[in-house]
Amino acid sequence: MTTKMIGNAVVGQSGGPTAVINQSLVGVIEEVAKQDGIKHLFGAMHGVRGIVDEKLKDIKSTSPVELERIAHTPSSALGSTRDKPDEAYCEKIFSAFRKHDVRYFFYIGGNDSASTAHIVDSLAEKAKYDLKVFHVPKTIDNDLLVTDHCPGFGSAATFVNYAVIGDDLDNRSLPGIKIDIIMGRHAGFLTASSVLAKRREDDGPHLIYVPERPISMDQFANDVNEVYARLGRCMVIVSEGIHDVDGELWAKKLKEVTTDSHGNVELAGSGLDAYLIAVLKKSLPKARMRADTFGYLQRSFPVVVSPTDAQEARECGRAAVRAALSDTRSGSISLRRLPGKDYKCETFVTPLSTVAVKTKSLAQEHINAAGNFIMPSFVEYLRPLVAPLPEVGYFK
Amino acid sequence: MTTKMIGNAVVGQSGGPTAVINQSLVGVIEEVAKQDGIKHLFGAMHGVRGIVDEKLKDIKSTSPVELERIAHTPSSALGSTRDKPDEAYCEKIFSAFRKHDVRYFFYIGGNDSASTAHIVDSLAEKAKYDLKVFHVPKTIDNDLLVTDHCPGFGSAATFVNYAVIGDDLDNRSLPGIKIDIIMGRHAGFLTASSVLAKRREDDGPHLIYVPERPISMDQFANDVNEVYARLGRCMVIVSEGIHDVDGELWAKKLKEVTTDSHGNVELAGSGLDAYLIAVLKKSLPKARMRADTFGYLQRSFPVVVSPTDAQEARECGRAAVRAALSDTRSGSISLRRLPGKDYKCETFVTPLSTVAVKTKSLAQEHINAAGNFIMPSFVEYLRPLVAPLPEVGYFK
Repeated sequence: MTTKMIGNAVVGQSGGPTAVINQSLVGVIEEVAKQDGIKHLFGAMHGVRGIVDEKLKDIKSTSPVELERIAHTPSSALGSTRDKPDEAYCEKIFSAFRKHDVRYFFYIGGNDSASTAHIVDSLAEKAKYDLKVFHVPKTIDNDLLVTDHCPGFGSAATFVNYAVIGDDLDNRSLPGIKIDIIMGRHAGFLTASSVLAKRREDDGPHLIYVPERPISMDQFANDVNEVYARLGRCMVIVSEGIHDVDGELWAKKLKEVTTDSHGNVELAGSGLDAYLIAVLKKSLPKARMRADTFGYLQRSFPVVVSPTDAQEARECGRAAVRAALSDTRSGSISLRRLPGKDYKCETFVTPLSTVAVKTKSLAQEHINAAGNFIMPSFVEYLRPLVAPLPEVGYFK
Repeated sequence: MTTKMIGNAVVGQSGGPTAVINQSLVGVIEEVAKQDGIKHLFGAMHGVRGIVDEKLKDIKSTSPVELERIAHTPSSALGSTRDKPDEAYCEKIFSAFRKHDVRYFFYIGGNDSASTAHIVDSLAEKAKYDLKVFHVPKTIDNDLLVTDHCPGFGSAATFVNYAVIGDDLDNRSLPGIKIDIIMGRHAGFLTASSVLAKRREDDGPHLIYVPERPISMDQFANDVNEVYARLGRCMVIVSEGIHDVDGELWAKKLKEVTTDSHGNVELAGSGLDAYLIAVLKKSLPKARMRADTFGYLQRSFPVVVSPTDAQEARECGRAAVRAALSDTRSGSISLRRLPGKDYKCETFVTPLSTVAVKTKSLAQEHINAAGNFIMPSFVEYLRPLVAPLPEVGYFK
């Protein structure tokens, strides 16, 4: 296998969008553009789907001005896919690569994308076809193994904190119980990130619940009652993936409530938001309550972005191309925090197998004993990844 | 009645917060601070509630640096209230004013706040007590009479457009049907404002539904089907106050669906979001669908603010104080668009009775014949009120 191969390259984006996934894409494009050996850089429209359907667009000569505009645009400029290729699907990808003389494959996505890259890499090796395969990390959930953190997370966490700061000011002005439901079905990193919004002693969030620590509905209601009695209000941040001590998702318990309250619109809910309010209404029938689910805004809101996240996402794209031009055959780009007083990360390559399939959870040490708040150790990890948060003015 | 009275002033904030309601508050404070005649400026904590409970904080000497920080902070720095004072309540307000030698009352809020100001003004007049009463407009709904538009609306519309632009990019990358539910129980201005997010021919929003035009569920489903068949995706913006041709709120129809689908979590919904998805699933069982309710983020998100809105909110606060020092006894500050090529507004005073009680609706001429989109006439009205929207990059 030659280190620098003459041939074409393919880049694709996969899974849920982030605010900075196009930074990684542009990082790949601008680094490839420097290489004489790579003739065409094909953007695969809608990820692996675009490879097997041969929807490939040559994007190597996109102008720097256009590239910069794309880099600052949230969501996947090439389109994305939810397809999770199995062995047979990957055979089709590989066969498209042979047909188009593709020698470099860059895939930007989460752990499923790393798996796809891993299978394609194995197929190429078995066939003795020279192919360089690099996965570029992306996820607002921050749940990839090996890497210190994932590009996309810092910007989603920035959005969540802006929203929670505003919402806490709203809740101060019209006191009551406010629940915000945050993305992350299995990993609580994004939910936990809301801890930064608490800057004054009585600021919200007052309670934070992550999927990594099961909590009973009774405990949840007790916690809220305690804060409400003390402050006359309560800001609660809940992960959509929260589950009960019996291991069942709270979101699944909805059915019971719906059945209990046949015909009762107040209690029936298809969403966790309605369910949590129904649970709290039992002990706090008169309190003002409202739940909002932040939804897709967390992953695609423009401009409210972490500069560190944007810069690292770009650098991960560039690093993938540099690695592909080295002796390494394949791998996933990861971030490593360097020692020292000031925050700094460097990229390195980890084998695809170490990132594929499995995911990372929020460590138990970052969750308090009561399972209802986040520890300072997580704040220390988190702060450099998030943009500076808005100052808040108030009367002394 | 003297034009310039020696005495104290009270300022309060009422109703749902906005991103710029503190600009109006700071406008009042900085203009009052210039006046020798006004000894104390009391901030009423949580609006009229703070007046009757005598929770008054002297804020006249707040430093300019602190004031500027407060001005840029969303939500009501003095706290807010949902109390809608009747005659008896207003008697208590008036009696607190007598006790504290209050001669100036500035109340920042919507049409209910104008009503309160109006009743208090009448009581003072009847009692021959010299009192100047001025209402300062505020509402994200933009539903006050007389004024060209309301401070708070332009910033909420800016947030909504940022969110819809990001969400449309998200929907492009993973195509499907996406519904966003926007605040405004009776007025469709904020929902209609999302029209600015559509900049390219195939950009969303593709459909916009406001409360001012009833729409049947069949028509709604047909509209979505048509767009989905044409583009393979559909972005729908729906006001929370949308209602059926029989005049009933769609949100109220939930109960029927809940009853129909006893035990079926998919169909049961306490929210309009789940209901709309249930309606669409009948004709599009396989389409990817998701609905998000933007919720409180629309009224309290920090930083994503319209500079014009912020400046006008500030100016309305200042204008109220200037008016109070003129010969006018009472009134509501309103905005009037000046003729000319470039957008410019000036403030003027309208009698409290013209703003109290009633509200404004989106004019029918701004809604298309099919009742599913917004006309260019509204875009013309809206554009100067909203911040410049983020540029979007894409591959040609």
